[in-house]
Amino acid sequence: MASHYTTTRRVEFRDTDTAGIMHFSAYFTYMEQAEHEFLRDLGLSVHLRDDEGVISWPRASAKCDYLGAARFEDVFQIHVSVARLGEKSVTFRFRFTRDDTQLALGSITAVCCRLDPSGGPPRSIPIPTAIAQKLGQFVTAEGKRATEATDDSGPSS
Amino acid sequence: MASHYTTTRRVEFRDTDTAGIMHFSAYFTYMEQAEHEFLRDLGLSVHLRDDEGVISWPRASAKCDYLGAARFEDVFQIHVSVARLGEKSVTFRFRFTRDDTQLALGSITAVCCRLDPSGGPPRSIPIPTAIAQKLGQFVTAEGKRATEATDDSGPSS
Amino acid sequence: MASHYTTTRRVEFRDTDTAGIMHFSAYFTYMEQAEHEFLRDLGLSVHLRDDEGVISWPRASAKCDYLGAARFEDVFQIHVSVARLGEKSVTFRFRFTRDDTQLALGSITAVCCRLDPSGGPPRSIPIPTAIAQKLGQFVTAEGKRATEATDDSGPSS
Amino acid sequence: MASHYTTTRRVEFRDTDTAGIMHFSAYFTYMEQAEHEFLRDLGLSVHLRDDEGVISWPRASAKCDYLGAARFEDVFQIHVSVARLGEKSVTFRFRFTRDDTQLALGSITAVCCRLDPSGGPPRSIPIPTAIAQKLGQFVTAEGKRATEATDDSGPSS
Repeated sequence: MASHYTTTRRVEFRDTDTAGIMHFSAYFTYMEQAEHEFLRDLGLSVHLRDDEGVISWPRASAKCDYLGAARFEDVFQIHVSVARLGEKSVTFRFRFTRDDTQLALGSITAVCCRLDPSGGPPRSIPIPTAIAQKLGQFVTAEGKRATEATDDSGPSS
Repeated sequence: MASHYTTTRRVEFRDTDTAGIMHFSAYFTYMEQAEHEFLRDLGLSVHLRDDEGVISWPRASAKCDYLGAARFEDVFQIHVSVARLGEKSVTFRFRFTRDDTQLALGSITAVCCRLDPSGGPPRSIPIPTAIAQKLGQFVTAEGKRATEATDDSGPSS
Repeated sequence: MASHYTTTRRVEFRDTDTAGIMHFSAYFTYMEQAEHEFLRDLGLSVHLRDDEGVISWPRASAKCDYLGAARFEDVFQIHVSVARLGEKSVTFRFRFTRDDTQLALGSITAVCCRLDPSGGPPRSIPIPTAIAQKLGQFVTAEGKRATEATDDSGPSS
Repeated sequence: MASHYTTTRRVEFRDTDTAGIMHFSAYFTYMEQAEHEFLRDLGLSVHLRDDEGVISWPRASAKCDYLGAARFEDVFQIHVSVARLGEKSVTFRFRFTRDDTQLALGSITAVCCRLDPSGGPPRSIPIPTAIAQKLGQFVTAEGKRATEATDDSGPSS
């Protein structure tokens, strides 16, 4: 049974542009805010410090389809679900709505990585079991089929 | 014969994050900067004021695949081409490179719209011929085939 | 009797930098968010549309003193008061705290202006009485003395 | 004999707002870009890695007075000088101009600090001699008098 997490935001002045609407790039920072709020709600963080250093989640891809325009001070909802849960990566899906209007549909694929404290590139690792179990509860029905049908497409370490 | 436009940027401190790399959302603002610089190079602007008001280019979609990580003060190139030229919309493609490394591949689909000065929603219009001709020179070979095979998928007015 | 308005924010990932702390420029956007939330709480908006067009509040100055560092996911408070209420301008004061730690002290001076729909420069106007009365309740004791001692230093129209 | 460094920028779409002008917070990121470009021009960086770790320059204060409005695609200059050079801190001054119009006057006071790799607070240190000598060439006449008259007001370690 799929579930999702919903949060609310308001269009801030800094995120509008001279065309009078919320700038398309701002949807990506709002997606990330919603993802992080969702992870916190699960007792997780996107930037975990453990004995071996830091686990972070660099992005493999991000996309957004824009269906409507939002203006200064508009209140909107962001609905977060898990579209796909791989061995090393997860794809979050984000639906932006204002009342009954769909504003945008986006997604972010993040790869579970251990950061190199000496500045080398992040190294992908399997998602720790405790995290995978929590995220697993939010995989959508489509996501379950996609996950079964494919191998993990995250970047190789 | 396809052509493309190249510009150079440097990772600014504001665009890095606590993981030590350029934030994924910054690629979208750099794509837009490259798009606008490309349009200026063609003698165009993304925000044209004419007798009837303002023609602008709201986005129908944007996406980015991340292939590498960029750090503070890294210099990188953005290569812009036209992946698809429709009747009312255009898809720009952006390739980010640092030396011989590919950092990211992105795209933005923008819809030619007339803005409503009284605050109503933007209304899509056919791309003016003078603009379409200039952009047409930068359509890639794949873009030419895609353009011939499909109708315009831009949002209806 | 002075009063103030308090709101709460959390350090978002996009607002951190490669030094691991919230970027200094982000305090200014948080100040603005707090100002606008305060104005909404008073039943006002920073961008009011009336019969003659739009009243907006361009900034005459902004400053911030940084007393501490905030990190990703830190929760902090912003306390808003009115340091000075002039005929055409208002100075908001912002105190950032995390628990009992002061993080920053900032201020923004905004000038009440009518926007020119044809793209000319904003023109300063006296703050409408209904707005001045509401803001007047939040003038600090120091602000009251400053207001009595000086003329309005806002830009002339 | 005072000297200064000048760089050129253009108002990007993302930095405009629904009032049609460059957002006041964007001046601070442009100041920082100009500061970093100035430091690179001197062979320095704001984020130096040496044997003992990283030297960075957290900000003690930042301010900006706005004298004009800049619009999308306006080209402007930023003139950087050193208003004050202390033992542990430096104050950069920034003058924004568009043709002969002054747009803004800003300043940033940065404190020379060694970052704690284990996440503790930055610790202020005397500015290394090689850096102080290079910055010293750009101190304005007013800055020289201010520097002689005062002790370093940077935060104590």
